[in-house]
Amino acid sequence: MTTITASPLTAESFNEFGDVIQTDGAASFEINQGMCTRFHDLAKIETSGPDGHPLISLARGKPYRLPLHLTMVERHPLGSQAFIPLSDNPFLVIVCQDNNGVPGIPQAFLTANRQGINYRQNIWHGILTPLHDMSDFIIIDRGGGGNNLEEYFFDQPYQVIVPE
Amino acid sequence: MTTITASPLTAESFNEFGDVIQTDGAASFEINQGMCTRFHDLAKIETSGPDGHPLISLARGKPYRLPLHLTMVERHPLGSQAFIPLSDNPFLVIVCQDNNGVPGIPQAFLTANRQGINYRQNIWHGILTPLHDMSDFIIIDRGGGGNNLEEYFFDQPYQVIVPE
Repeated sequence: MTTITASPLTAESFNEFGDVIQTDGAASFEINQGMCTRFHDLAKIETSGPDGHPLISLARGKPYRLPLHLTMVERHPLGSQAFIPLSDNPFLVIVCQDNNGVPGIPQAFLTANRQGINYRQNIWHGILTPLHDMSDFIIIDRGGGGNNLEEYFFDQPYQVIVPE
Repeated sequence: MTTITASPLTAESFNEFGDVIQTDGAASFEINQGMCTRFHDLAKIETSGPDGHPLISLARGKPYRLPLHLTMVERHPLGSQAFIPLSDNPFLVIVCQDNNGVPGIPQAFLTANRQGINYRQNIWHGILTPLHDMSDFIIIDRGGGGNNLEEYFFDQPYQVIVPE
């Protein structure tokens, strides 16, 4: 079984797959007479198709144990999908480049400091993978008609580890 | 000075102004082989205008002291605006009905248990008003051209109180 080692999530390393939703490095400005700082426009929401529209939902995920056995990834051809944590628990972010319609070797990232992520439309990614404890997330993704889910099951699962 | 007493925020009492973003009473279903519960489509995102599009931003707000002196409200003619707390700190939600383009007497609500809210397009509302401590929020609102802000300053401020 091939082992994938998770790296710390950074905007640079994740750039080809989507956005890291974080205040670090984000453009910001003061509003409300200086009572509030707005970190502005942190992710690109994509909602393709004639009746595509954005949704706000909440996900409550059970934690996964490490090492993770990664058996599948999925992608959403019609829309982006953002996950913003409502807790301090980190989660695993797994993505793959696409090779002619098939996912390549997965890359794994570990969030820290409440980083959220936004998968760009049609990017192969793992399912929501919280660690340590039951964890809530805000999801911002696409509603509307059309097939917006494609799943791919690997012939051999990958093992994903997090360095100590 | 007229005093407004904040009530507990409920979906029913807030219904004419927008959505309460909460798991209580929300439709949900299991995903990821039972590892995750999705509380689905909790708020209606509105982005009017030819290039209107949704934005994900983060707000970091300083706390306000009670009683609050409410001097103004605002509204966004072209889009909804959602605030989802990233902390346990409650915040005040202040809204007004519209009377021929002018806000009526404010109504105040106090959030609990991490309730978020989504102001419907063109609803008069107060600015973000966290209590107790510096508080982070996810904002989902509208980007794009056109004038999406209207402010109204009251002749006399209101005093907003929270019952013990």
